[in-house]
Amino acid sequence: MPDRSPSDVIKPEVRRLSAYTLKHVKADVKVDQNENPYELPMELKEEVVRRVLARPWGRYPEFVPASTTKALAKFTGWTEDGILIGNGSNELIMAGLSVILGPGRKVVIPQPTFTLYKLLSSVFQSNAVLVPLKADFSFDVEAIAEASKDAAVTVICSPNNPTGTLLETDALKRILNGTRGLVFLDEAYHEFSGQTALQLLPAHQNLVVLRTFSKAMSMAGLRFGYMMAHPEVAKEIHKAKLPYNVNVFTLTAAELVLERPGLLLNAIQTLVAERQRLIREVRKRPGVEAFDSCANFFLMRTSRDARELFDALYKQGVLVRDVSAYPMLERVLRVTAGTPEENDRFLSALDKSLETT
Amino acid sequence: MPDRSPSDVIKPEVRRLSAYTLKHVKADVKVDQNENPYELPMELKEEVVRRVLARPWGRYPEFVPASTTKALAKFTGWTEDGILIGNGSNELIMAGLSVILGPGRKVVIPQPTFTLYKLLSSVFQSNAVLVPLKADFSFDVEAIAEASKDAAVTVICSPNNPTGTLLETDALKRILNGTRGLVFLDEAYHEFSGQTALQLLPAHQNLVVLRTFSKAMSMAGLRFGYMMAHPEVAKEIHKAKLPYNVNVFTLTAAELVLERPGLLLNAIQTLVAERQRLIREVRKRPGVEAFDSCANFFLMRTSRDARELFDALYKQGVLVRDVSAYPMLERVLRVTAGTPEENDRFLSALDKSLETT
Repeated sequence: MPDRSPSDVIKPEVRRLSAYTLKHVKADVKVDQNENPYELPMELKEEVVRRVLARPWGRYPEFVPASTTKALAKFTGWTEDGILIGNGSNELIMAGLSVILGPGRKVVIPQPTFTLYKLLSSVFQSNAVLVPLKADFSFDVEAIAEASKDAAVTVICSPNNPTGTLLETDALKRILNGTRGLVFLDEAYHEFSGQTALQLLPAHQNLVVLRTFSKAMSMAGLRFGYMMAHPEVAKEIHKAKLPYNVNVFTLTAAELVLERPGLLLNAIQTLVAERQRLIREVRKRPGVEAFDSCANFFLMRTSRDARELFDALYKQGVLVRDVSAYPMLERVLRVTAGTPEENDRFLSALDKSLETT
Repeated sequence: MPDRSPSDVIKPEVRRLSAYTLKHVKADVKVDQNENPYELPMELKEEVVRRVLARPWGRYPEFVPASTTKALAKFTGWTEDGILIGNGSNELIMAGLSVILGPGRKVVIPQPTFTLYKLLSSVFQSNAVLVPLKADFSFDVEAIAEASKDAAVTVICSPNNPTGTLLETDALKRILNGTRGLVFLDEAYHEFSGQTALQLLPAHQNLVVLRTFSKAMSMAGLRFGYMMAHPEVAKEIHKAKLPYNVNVFTLTAAELVLERPGLLLNAIQTLVAERQRLIREVRKRPGVEAFDSCANFFLMRTSRDARELFDALYKQGVLVRDVSAYPMLERVLRVTAGTPEENDRFLSALDKSLETT
C-alpha cells in the first residue's frame, strides 16, 4: 500500500497533538520539576532495600496491593474500597479519564493547568471546554460552575500547576453540587497549602481526589500516586487500572513512609517558608513580578523574553521551568522552592541575569 | 440529586465489564502466573541496589529513559526511535490502543487470549471482533486475515496465553500484508518459543511488537516492558505514554540485565525442557489431555471439574491457574513450568488428586 503511512490509523486528534515532553538537562540547582530537594533518610532507604532484597523479583506484586491500600486508608482516614494505587497519579488520571471520556463527552479544564489532562482528553476524542483562569490566576468559579453543569468530568488542580492557585472549599462545593458529572480534584501539591478536600468525600459522591508521592513526599523517582473516590466510582475506574501496576520496590518504600506520617513535616515547613521568602525577595527586584502561590513553586514575570532569562539562569547553574508557552503566561518562569542554599544561588543568579539585560 | 448514582457517568461498556482480577494466594509450588522460578543472581541485585542508593529518590527519572532505550536498541537491533519503554508491557498496550481505538474502530482479537486486550477495547468503546482459535487451539489464520482487512488493530499473542500456540511467520506476513491497520504482536513468551517477528519490522511498517521482562527475564516484580514499531507509529503512541512511567529502580535493573544478554539462557532452556517433560508425563496419566505449547506453560484437560481439581492440587501446596472460564477451555487448567523439583511435586499432587476422584 504505497501511498499510505503506517500512522494513518492513528486518531486524527492524536496526530494533531504535539508530544508532551521535557528535555533532561543537568544543573547544580535543579528547581524545574517541583521536586522535594530533601531526600528520605538514608536509614529508611536502607530498610527499603533490605526488604526488597529479601523478596523474589521474579514474582508479580499483588494484583491489588492490599497492605499498601490499608496503610493509605489509615493515613488518610478514607475507606479502603475507595482507594486506588497507581504508578504515579498520572496512571490513575489515565485510567479515570478512560472509563468516562469519549466522543461527545464533555470535560471542563481550567487553563493553564497540568498538561496531561488536556492531552488525554484529546486522545479520548472528548469535547474539552477550556476555562481560562482570571487575570490574577485565581479560578473563574462562576465560569467553571456554569460549564460543569453538563460535563462528564471537571478537572481542578488545587493548588494549580503552574500557577500555585488554590480553589477555596466553598467554591469547590458549589462546583460539586452543580455538576452532573465527576470532579477530579488533583491535590498533587496539597501538603504545601495546608488544605485538602478529603473531608468532602463522604458527602460528595462525585468527588475524586488524586494525590502523589512525587512532590512533598520526595518519591518522584519511585512513582507512586493514589486516588480516593466513592467506592462505586473506584470500582469502575479500577477496571481500567492495569494489574500489577506498582512494583515491589515502590510499594515497600511507600509503606515505610506511611508508617511515619510526620517524616517530611520539617521539609515541607522549610519549603513553604522558603517559597514565601523567594516571593518576597523576587518582588524587591525592580521590574520583576512574583505571583502568590500555595504550592512549592511560584511564577515570576519579567520584562525579558522568558527563554533569554531561562538561558541566563541556566548558564549560572540554575535550572528553572520556562512556562511562557502556556496560555496567559507570556514572559513567565516557574521556580520551585529548593533548599535555602539553592534559593540563595537562584537569587544571585537572577540578579546577575537581570543586570546583564 | 437523589435518584442518581455517582457512577452513572461511567461509560456503559465499562459498567458492564467485570473487573479483571486475581486473588493473591500463597503456595509452596506457585505455577499459576507464568513467572520464571529462577531469580536473577544476587550479585546483580546487590549492584542494582548499590546504584539505586547512590541516586536521589526525590528526583524524577528521565522523561524518556535514553540510556535504557539505547541498551534495548543494542539488545534487539531495532532503532532507538522505534522503541518505547513501559511499566510492564500492559502500559504500552493501554497507550497503543488508546491512540487508535474508539467508537466505530474495529479491533480483531483471537479467543481465548490475554484478557487485557478485550477489556481495553471495551473501555475504548471499539468494535471488537473475536475470532475463535481452531479446536486444536491453533490460530484460524483464514478468519483472522479476513476480519483484519478493515480493522484498525489486529491483536496476536504469539505464543498465545493461555494456549501456548505459536503463529507461524508466513501466517503473520499474510495478516500484515492484508490489513489496513496495525498488528499488535505480543511476544511476552517469545524466549520459550525460539521465534520472534523482530526481523519483519523493517519491511512491515504496520507491525508493533510488544515484549516484557516479566516472564523469561524474571522481573515480574519490577514491571518492565517495551514496544518496537516503525518510528512514525512509535511517535504517535508515545504521545499517550505517561511521562516518567518507569522508576529508577526498574530502569537500573533492566540496564544491568541488558548488559548480560546470556544471563537467563540456562534458565530458559531448563524451563523449555521441563515444559516438554511435564507434557509427556501428564499424557501418561489416563484420562488427562495435555496440549502442545511453545511458552513456559501448558494446558491440560481432565474429566473432572476444573475448580475441583484446582482445589485438590492447592490442598497439596500446588497453585495452578483455573482457566476453565475462558471460551473453549472447559475443564482446563494452565500449569507453568517450574523448577524440576516443583514440577515433580506438581506431578505427584496431580496423581493423588486424580486417585481421589
